[in-house]
This record gives sequence, structure tokens and C-alpha cells, in this order.
Amino acid sequence: MIDEELTGRAETISKAIEDLMPIVHPTGLYQASRHLVDAGGKRLRPSMLLIAAEAVGGDPLALVSAAVSIELIHNFTLIHDDIMDNANIRRGRQSVHKIWGDSGAILAGDTLYSKAFQILGRTPVEPRLILESMNILSQTCTAICEGQWLDLEFENRFRVSEDEYMEMIEKKTGVLYGASACMGATLSGAPDEVAKGLDEFGKLTGMGFQIHDDVLDLTAPEKVLGKRRGGDLVEGKKTLIMIHALEHSVEVDVFGKKDATPQEIERTLSILERSGSIEYARSRAANLVNRGKSALDVLSDSPAKRLLLELADYMIKRGY
Amino acid sequence: MIDEELTGRAETISKAIEDLMPIVHPTGLYQASRHLVDAGGKRLRPSMLLIAAEAVGGDPLALVSAAVSIELIHNFTLIHDDIMDNANIRRGRQSVHKIWGDSGAILAGDTLYSKAFQILGRTPVEPRLILESMNILSQTCTAICEGQWLDLEFENRFRVSEDEYMEMIEKKTGVLYGASACMGATLSGAPDEVAKGLDEFGKLTGMGFQIHDDVLDLTAPEKVLGKRRGGDLVEGKKTLIMIHALEHSVEVDVFGKKDATPQEIERTLSILERSGSIEYARSRAANLVNRGKSALDVLSDSPAKRLLLELADYMIKRGY
Repeated sequence: MIDEELTGRAETISKAIEDLMPIVHPTGLYQASRHLVDAGGKRLRPSMLLIAAEAVGGDPLALVSAAVSIELIHNFTLIHDDIMDNANIRRGRQSVHKIWGDSGAILAGDTLYSKAFQILGRTPVEPRLILESMNILSQTCTAICEGQWLDLEFENRFRVSEDEYMEMIEKKTGVLYGASACMGATLSGAPDEVAKGLDEFGKLTGMGFQIHDDVLDLTAPEKVLGKRRGGDLVEGKKTLIMIHALEHSVEVDVFGKKDATPQEIERTLSILERSGSIEYARSRAANLVNRGKSALDVLSDSPAKRLLLELADYMIKRGY
Repeated sequence: MIDEELTGRAETISKAIEDLMPIVHPTGLYQASRHLVDAGGKRLRPSMLLIAAEAVGGDPLALVSAAVSIELIHNFTLIHDDIMDNANIRRGRQSVHKIWGDSGAILAGDTLYSKAFQILGRTPVEPRLILESMNILSQTCTAICEGQWLDLEFENRFRVSEDEYMEMIEKKTGVLYGASACMGATLSGAPDEVAKGLDEFGKLTGMGFQIHDDVLDLTAPEKVLGKRRGGDLVEGKKTLIMIHALEHSVEVDVFGKKDATPQEIERTLSILERSGSIEYARSRAANLVNRGKSALDVLSDSPAKRLLLELADYMIKRGY
């Protein structure tokens, strides 16, 4: 059921993107800006915004432009991150900087950034509510930059504590989900305390989403991942799984070993399963999602609230 | 007199930047973001915003945060441009990407981008006016990306027409000056037609500023430029001077010749002076500035209006 609900909203978002960000002169810039956006993805963040609006009694149809702005911000961060990580593939497509070069990808990201604010500015609600949402969005973008900075910094550090990791994923992933849910409420004129509850819901479930992503990177079949299994591991990424392993002196000899064989990865997976490191990450993700769901106590029961609760579970149960 | 007026405002802006964008955790990110901003510069854009506010009877002191947001946007574009152009030096300092790498510079720019919107959001005026200014600023940022895209595209083109060049500098340089003057008026609650006149004033004088910059690159002493004379020429940049020369079949053999000697540059300068190409650029710049000044007819006379007229002349008379 949640799948259907998400698919319908994803289609609405994709159509709106074509209307709100047409390919105009200079066409090269707009093609580069739309390349990743058009590759799809599950549109979870804008869908969360629309369902949050419904759950507070707002009109989701009026907020499609705001939902699009969230999706554009998400894609802007992916395009710039892929330059930094020198990643070749994203959503089964060549990454933007592989096709248009670093300069083209920097500009494509910058364009999505400003277009997001332009499009949010056109939401047909009171100016006061749009301004409040713009303040939420600009704060969120600053936090995302901080999160990405920390992520890069951690790569050069020997040890990272669990608290530091949590701060990083809160900023890198949590806050944009938080902004999505919160803006859905704010733009619908919901009271502050409700908007705050939804912010908390989005942030905590978004952090769960990120930890689940780390788990999938190790456990999902390569066909589903669309990339090499154990990529984070061999890249030396300090995920929660690795932090747990390092703290418990688990021997992970392929950590940071870029030429590790599939057999070595497989063996490491068993080691990390026996050490309880994967289970630990799973339980932390589940805990965050449960806390996120509790934050919805500010809402009275409704089909949309139930959908948000389902979405929360989906974020750590999805297979990709 | 204009010098003193500008120096005073530049100091106000610099102090406000320290308050509004302090170096906080993660400090590396904020140091990288502040590096170029702290190197100074003339702060012409935010000063134009403050003087425009005065000229429409507004309170410039209330708009310092808006002026800062313009300066941060300007610096964000410089940081990203320097990555694209692989420029080593800016304002006599090492460029951000030379110190923090491309990843650090991308993130420093992105942070200035979102901080600009955060800081603009705090301007102590009616929400409706702030929202209007945010819409102006986001539109402006999109246009700047388009202008930079065109500039890069022109490097790979054999011929560029004068109209194409004018479109490029309007977007790359003109619109941010336009936004500065226009936001000064808008945030002061000036009528639309006045804000429009100021937008036109900023845009046209900003274009004159850019052409004057191209002229200085060829004619100013290296000591004043802080970099090699004729840099645009040997990089093969299609400035208005070169477009005129190419259209008049003037032989410019050092065009795009990166290892040209100072003697060759000197000789080319004489050729471009005899062909009237430099004079042509100067007269186009003067013409744009005059048209910009006429756009101020929407304002009644005042000391601030006279200051704007002086600022317009300064933009094409400054020695650096």
C-alpha cells in the first residue's frame, strides 16, 4: 500500500518538475541540471512534505511547488557530492560531472539551488508562510554543507565517535527530511508545536534512513544496489557499523582496502554479523524510527498520519 | 568624496559580516567560507544597496543584513568561478580551492549561498518585503549561473557576437548590481516603478563596470592589477575589445597564446589602441553608465541620489 501511495506522489512531483524547471536557454545548463533529477529516484522527501501537509489538514495540491523545491535541493547536494567523491554512477546514470565536467556540474548544482528558492517563492500561500519556509530551507542547506564537511573530515580521521557520526548524519541526511515534513506543516499554517513535531519526525526517520543505507551497502545484492557491494567499507567510510566494529576491536582487514575481492567482502560480512556490528546498526536505525514515530503524537489520527507511520517503517525496510 | 563614502560603508559591511557569519563548528568550513570575504574588496554591491535605500527615503541601517547577503552571494560566485578557471590568486590571497581543495571550495561557496538567504531572512522589515527580495535574489542567482555557463561556452567558440557578449555580462555581472540597487528600494517599501528604475540603474552600470574591467586587464599597470597584464587576452577570453578586433580583422597574434612575452602584450596593446578596439569598449562602457544614470530619473534629487550618480561614474573610472 505504501508503495502505491509513494508511486502516485512521485509521478506528481516528476510532472511538476518538467513544468517548473523547463529546459530553456542556455539549454546545456538546464540539461545538465535536469540530468539527475530526471533519472527519478523514489522522491521520498517531497512525498513526505505532501503527506505531512495532508496530516495537518492542509491542501497538498497547493504545495507541489514546495515539494519540488525540496527535491531540487536534494539533487543539488547529490551533484556536488558526486564531484567531491569522484563518483561515476548515480541512479544507474553517468554522474553529471562525468558528462559535463566539474565546471558544468558545479553550475548545474548551483542552478538547482537557486531554482529551488525561486520555485518555493511561487507557492500559493500567504507570504508570511513562504518566508518562514524559506528560512527553514536556507538553515537546512547550511546544515547539509556542515554535514558533508564533517563526512569529508572523518575520512582523514583515525577514530570517529558514535556521537560525531550521529551529528554528521543528522546534518547530512536528517535535516532535509526534517525540513520536508516541517515545511508541509508550516505552509499549511499548522501551529508551531505541530510543525516542530513533524520536523522531529522527519529528522529522526531520516537518520534511520541513512543508517539503513549503510547496512544495505553491505548486505543488499549487487543487482539491487546497482553498484559494488561493500563500497563504503573498502572506501574506508566511517559508518556506524565500522564505528561499532572498531570500538569492539573487531578485525576488519578489508577496511579501506580498495582492491578487496568479493570473497574478502563476503568473509568480512560474516565477521561483522558475528560481532553484532550490523545488528547494532539495525537496532539504532529502528530506535530512531520509533522515536520519530512518537514525535507524531502531536497529530490526531487520520489516514495521512497512518501513512506517515508506514513511511517511517518503509525508510528502514526498503530493499534499495 | 565618493572614495570616503565607499570606505565608510565598506567598514560597516565588514563588521556586520563578522557578526552575522561567525566562525563556528565545524570551524574549517567557516574559515574556508570567510577566507575570501575577509580579504576585503571594495564592497561596491552592498554599498549600492545601502545608498539606494537612502535615495528612496529608507533606513540604510535596517538593511545592513540585506547588504551582507549580497556580498556573500558575490563571494560565493567568485569562489566557484575560481575553481572553474583554476585561478590561483584573488584579492592578493591564495584562492579558496588552492588552500582547501576543490571539495572545500565547493562547500565554502555553497555555505555562503545558503547563509546569504538566512541572513536576508533576518532583515527587520515586513515579511512581504523580505519575500519579494528573496525572489529577486534567487532569480538573480539563476541568471548568474546562466551567465557563467555562457562565459565558459564562449571559450570554446570561434566567434561570439556583441549581442551574445552583452547578454553574458548582463547575467554574469549586471544582474547582481541590479539586484543590489533594487533590493535597497524594495526593502524600503519604494513603489514598483522606483525599484524597477534602480534595477535598471544597477544592471546597466554593472555592465559598464564589467567592460571597464576588461579594459583595465589590458591597460592597468601590473602592480595595480595584482596579476599579469593582458591575462584575458592570452587566455583567449572573448572580451568586447577582442570581439571588436576580430570583427575588424585586426591581427592579434597573442590571442590565446599563454606564453606571450610582456613585449608581445605591449605591442598588442598598441595595435588594439590604433584599431580603436579599446576606445570602442571604453565608449560602450560610458554609454551603458549614462543610460544607467538616466534610469535614476525616477528619483527626486537628494544627496544620496547624487552619490549614486557619482558611484556610476566611479565604476568606469576606478583604477582597479
